[in-house]
Amino acid sequence: MNPKKVAVILSGCGFKDGAEIYEATLTLLALDEADAEVQCFAPDMPQMHVVNHLTGEEMAESRNVLVEAARLARGNIKPVTAAQVADFDALIIPGGFGAAKNLCDFAVKGSDMSVQPDVLAFAKGMHAAGKPVGFICIAPAMAPKVGGAGTQYTIGNDAGTAAAINAMGGKHVECAVDDCVVDRDRKIVTTPAYMYPARIREARAGIQKLVGAVLGMA
Amino acid sequence: MNPKKVAVILSGCGFKDGAEIYEATLTLLALDEADAEVQCFAPDMPQMHVVNHLTGEEMAESRNVLVEAARLARGNIKPVTAAQVADFDALIIPGGFGAAKNLCDFAVKGSDMSVQPDVLAFAKGMHAAGKPVGFICIAPAMAPKVGGAGTQYTIGNDAGTAAAINAMGGKHVECAVDDCVVDRDRKIVTTPAYMYPARIREARAGIQKLVGAVLGMA
Repeated sequence: MNPKKVAVILSGCGFKDGAEIYEATLTLLALDEADAEVQCFAPDMPQMHVVNHLTGEEMAESRNVLVEAARLARGNIKPVTAAQVADFDALIIPGGFGAAKNLCDFAVKGSDMSVQPDVLAFAKGMHAAGKPVGFICIAPAMAPKVGGAGTQYTIGNDAGTAAAINAMGGKHVECAVDDCVVDRDRKIVTTPAYMYPARIREARAGIQKLVGAVLGMA
Repeated sequence: MNPKKVAVILSGCGFKDGAEIYEATLTLLALDEADAEVQCFAPDMPQMHVVNHLTGEEMAESRNVLVEAARLARGNIKPVTAAQVADFDALIIPGGFGAAKNLCDFAVKGSDMSVQPDVLAFAKGMHAAGKPVGFICIAPAMAPKVGGAGTQYTIGNDAGTAAAINAMGGKHVECAVDDCVVDRDRKIVTTPAYMYPARIREARAGIQKLVGAVLGMA
């Protein structure tokens, strides 16, 4: 059997301004354990913010999403404009504030958000081609923009965040940290991970299930 | 049984100038799976280099080891000067070039290297107290400075690097990527991880074994 080819879109490196590092690493681990072939991508553009992860304060500097995401991919990463739907069987987008600041602007605009155009084009293209898309943590804020009205998703049990995503057409389903929600009709899979104050082994369990569900539909 | 308390010293965030992200994450995962309590530390000082992980080129900026390592620890990290031997049962130091640039200067000085004084004081203190110390990837360059002459260690199968560490008193043992080397007399455990062009699941296997061996002696 040919290995499944999976695109992973990263949003930087560090949960306060980029991709959540454990979520991204555990996604890559689960994909490797399942013998998938992975290519990482990120938008080649400035981060919305640079945050000091020790103090939580914004830093007066500028960093590039692709360059910082390259830390998480050990340099093996391409600009998201290079991602072709025909080359992949599935797409997974880990969370972290970067997903809500750099891949879309949910963190500042809530339900008035828009998805970064290149990310949206690729994710919608994958979805339109009947290929599964997985979203982790806060990344499911983009799920209704990709799967359309009625898309079932989870961000755990945070009612305020769920209300904002439901206002864009999503249908929130409560979910434990070590589980995932599968919208089989739309082939959209979501898991809450660090939407909860998770232990790393709990995030691992939920992400393993998400990866299994995504590959099962790929 | 009380949980084992383990200190993890990080050296930044990104394998070309800081801690290897997968190694650090997989260490924390294995420790959590074993019910250990973890506290991360890093030296509060400038990184030796900032490297663009997309191009491999040095960047003309300055970053702080502790502040960048905080990305890997989700903010839960302390300066290494705050680490007290009495508070911990074991110490683990993941790799990445940061281990050889920020925690010691092996990357530029080879066997004439010295270990950052606060890191050395804590690691030697742990060793002198009979507590196990684990080193991953290139971090075993510090093993002879901690365990003393005759310390058995591995950096995989890289003869040149092994010769430089042997010149400091180490005794290199070849080791596969998914295994670890245990010096039982000195309670020093090492695994090669990304000293090889590893698959992430291979690094996971070696690090799981290292964590098991460290906790078994703690």
